[in-house]
Amino acid sequence: MTKIIIIGAGPAGTAASLKAAEAGWETVLVEKDKLGGTCLQRGCIPTKALLEESHIVKQARSNFGLGDVNEVEIHRRKQQIVDELTQSLTRQINAKKITVLPGEARFVDEQSIVVDDTIHTADYFLIATGSRDRVFDFPGNAKLWLSEDALTTPLQSNRNLLLIGGGVIGIELAAYYNDLGHRVTILEKEARILPGAPKELSQSIATDFKKEGIRIITGVNIHSITQNLDYEVAFNDTVEHFDHVLLCAGRVPNTSTLGFEDIGLAHTSGLITIDENYRTNLPKIFAVGDASCRVQLAHVATRQAIDVMEYLIHGKNPQPFFTPFVIYTPVQAAWIGAAEAQLIANQTEYRSIRQPLGALAKQKIKSDGRRYVSLLVDPSNHILGVSLYMSEAGEFLPFFGLLMEMKIPLDQAKNLVFPHPTLSEAIGEIAANL
Amino acid sequence: MTKIIIIGAGPAGTAASLKAAEAGWETVLVEKDKLGGTCLQRGCIPTKALLEESHIVKQARSNFGLGDVNEVEIHRRKQQIVDELTQSLTRQINAKKITVLPGEARFVDEQSIVVDDTIHTADYFLIATGSRDRVFDFPGNAKLWLSEDALTTPLQSNRNLLLIGGGVIGIELAAYYNDLGHRVTILEKEARILPGAPKELSQSIATDFKKEGIRIITGVNIHSITQNLDYEVAFNDTVEHFDHVLLCAGRVPNTSTLGFEDIGLAHTSGLITIDENYRTNLPKIFAVGDASCRVQLAHVATRQAIDVMEYLIHGKNPQPFFTPFVIYTPVQAAWIGAAEAQLIANQTEYRSIRQPLGALAKQKIKSDGRRYVSLLVDPSNHILGVSLYMSEAGEFLPFFGLLMEMKIPLDQAKNLVFPHPTLSEAIGEIAANL
Repeated sequence: MTKIIIIGAGPAGTAASLKAAEAGWETVLVEKDKLGGTCLQRGCIPTKALLEESHIVKQARSNFGLGDVNEVEIHRRKQQIVDELTQSLTRQINAKKITVLPGEARFVDEQSIVVDDTIHTADYFLIATGSRDRVFDFPGNAKLWLSEDALTTPLQSNRNLLLIGGGVIGIELAAYYNDLGHRVTILEKEARILPGAPKELSQSIATDFKKEGIRIITGVNIHSITQNLDYEVAFNDTVEHFDHVLLCAGRVPNTSTLGFEDIGLAHTSGLITIDENYRTNLPKIFAVGDASCRVQLAHVATRQAIDVMEYLIHGKNPQPFFTPFVIYTPVQAAWIGAAEAQLIANQTEYRSIRQPLGALAKQKIKSDGRRYVSLLVDPSNHILGVSLYMSEAGEFLPFFGLLMEMKIPLDQAKNLVFPHPTLSEAIGEIAANL
Repeated sequence: MTKIIIIGAGPAGTAASLKAAEAGWETVLVEKDKLGGTCLQRGCIPTKALLEESHIVKQARSNFGLGDVNEVEIHRRKQQIVDELTQSLTRQINAKKITVLPGEARFVDEQSIVVDDTIHTADYFLIATGSRDRVFDFPGNAKLWLSEDALTTPLQSNRNLLLIGGGVIGIELAAYYNDLGHRVTILEKEARILPGAPKELSQSIATDFKKEGIRIITGVNIHSITQNLDYEVAFNDTVEHFDHVLLCAGRVPNTSTLGFEDIGLAHTSGLITIDENYRTNLPKIFAVGDASCRVQLAHVATRQAIDVMEYLIHGKNPQPFFTPFVIYTPVQAAWIGAAEAQLIANQTEYRSIRQPLGALAKQKIKSDGRRYVSLLVDPSNHILGVSLYMSEAGEFLPFFGLLMEMKIPLDQAKNLVFPHPTLSEAIGEIAANL
């Protein structure tokens, strides 16, 4: 019987273990914490659970004068969701007779690891250890919160919060705190927040955040952070005080304890080197997700994990895929395919179509904000890239993904009837105007 | 210059008028009320605006103890949305130099109508007069509310309401009132609510409504309704009292004043007879929407109106299309394509796939209810019919519509990556399990 040891029980590791077990392989999952990884325990899921609640608070406050809320209750409900999902995942893993080894794994050689002083051997290894918050030590030696602290600590009302880093994590937490009525400042060292997102989405979020009273300061250089009764932060040529400071400065691969040096596993600053089949330089060892990939998304890690198992079990080579990106702000920003800058750099012929949603009844019902569907299409109306700024934008990406994947030009969508009133009517308007 | 007179400025009439004007036709729109018709003024849009608010109330009440709300405020915001959309539609119509004739139209002959004592002639006519609430006179002569009254009348808190008729309108209003904390009873004469919807969706809504305290009584025969201080309603073998009674007993075509008899326009009980090009028995007169079609949906009427103009202007024959249906409950029920009963009747080979959403993180975050994607597929995995019971279900119909329209088997969606956490992941799970 083929045996695989999977290191890390996040979305990728658990998906791979289920695939392996279904194929009849002896499957071992090494995890030092609870099943579900960063995504379920201290990332995507708790963040979205908090945002779901904070959005209700914000709407009820603005429409119906809801007063202060008890954040302890919000965190209790968030934790209940996380716990239930953890239990359900644990049941799934147990039902497939997957062995879960608690602890940290360290490679001894290409065929064996040690966990808790015991050596385990296998035919294959899959590293799916994910990533962790990047930590900076600013002069002043203040103890800063990381995203995990934010996701587990209810605040008293009306705090003055500083978020260092305007990436996806910082932006989602800023939306959450602002919804609840806290004062929020974001300091970003780059020239714009969300430097990895298409520029128009980054600008739309910045505009809306400012309108809602979130301060955004870009091009920031932080000199020191001193912690006394509050936090004194010196940046650029000013000094400000905050009740809490959260560091959201990106994430680094969670690979430092794997024993790379002992076995000669190739990596760049901890990011494991892989080929197109997710194989490392050591043929029995594969790596997926944040441990080997700069796109830090649960659904990408999961897809890679499944691709590795399809390759090992059935000899299928991975197919390229379009990666969907979503920011839950809670007006979602979502994108898929090429960004405009990329098309310009590649000298690809394209034109851009921007359909504002303002005239749609459903959008008017939801809010009055500036929302849009923005498409980049080639001369024969094939979609090259999509940027969406609207409620539940992420749910629309599969529609566009399907058009891109199947190479269907957008005018073929002309005969579709879009239900009224929905936001999907925006797609119908674009198709009708082609 | 070709001239068209369009009777009725609802979604169909306004869409047709814009098409005609864009083609350079002399375009006249006859409307006795405001632009936008039932959908915008007293149907879909105000209903959805009220439901958006009531859903916030319900969530804020259950999670954060929000107290009684002022329904006058809810109606004010609803009306603001309606008014803004009306203004924006009016601007669009005016910008295209479309003549709007206020009043009711009556045909004089096949080439002319009279509006407000003036005769107007045209090359073509389009009847898009829509429908109105069906009125029943029960013994007892009580004055019952129609849906329009419900959409314009704020209530005091904690009323005891009776809705006669468990069709789409009754069901959406029941959800609205229940969200706000009123007591709601639905009396339906058929064996189930929503007799026009797929059975599983009708059952899911009934189950959830009952769980929320909405009383549903089916197979009801109403004997009398007497109005004193309250309403005394005698039905089956019992008598009950209610604060308000709403009649939601379906809709009838709005065609009785058009003068059919004078010109010999063919119809069945007011429903205008048309051919596959929406042409009546009089070759210059066309009819679309609720005036000639039993599927009473704004997006269907609009599509038909556009098809008529494409036929008249460009000689294009209408293409068949899949009709999307949505009930905004606010857990939406939505469907497209064939229902199971239909496939059985036609002896079509099919299998049914039901993917519960319960295990999805996004669903868990949104609520714990029983939600699902239910598909009917042929032996080669082409989708025949879809029933969705989930948040924003209507927004997912275009994805399935595209698969159906392009005859793409569902397994082709296997290579799509669905963003996490979204409800769209349910589609990915179905595709992966094929």
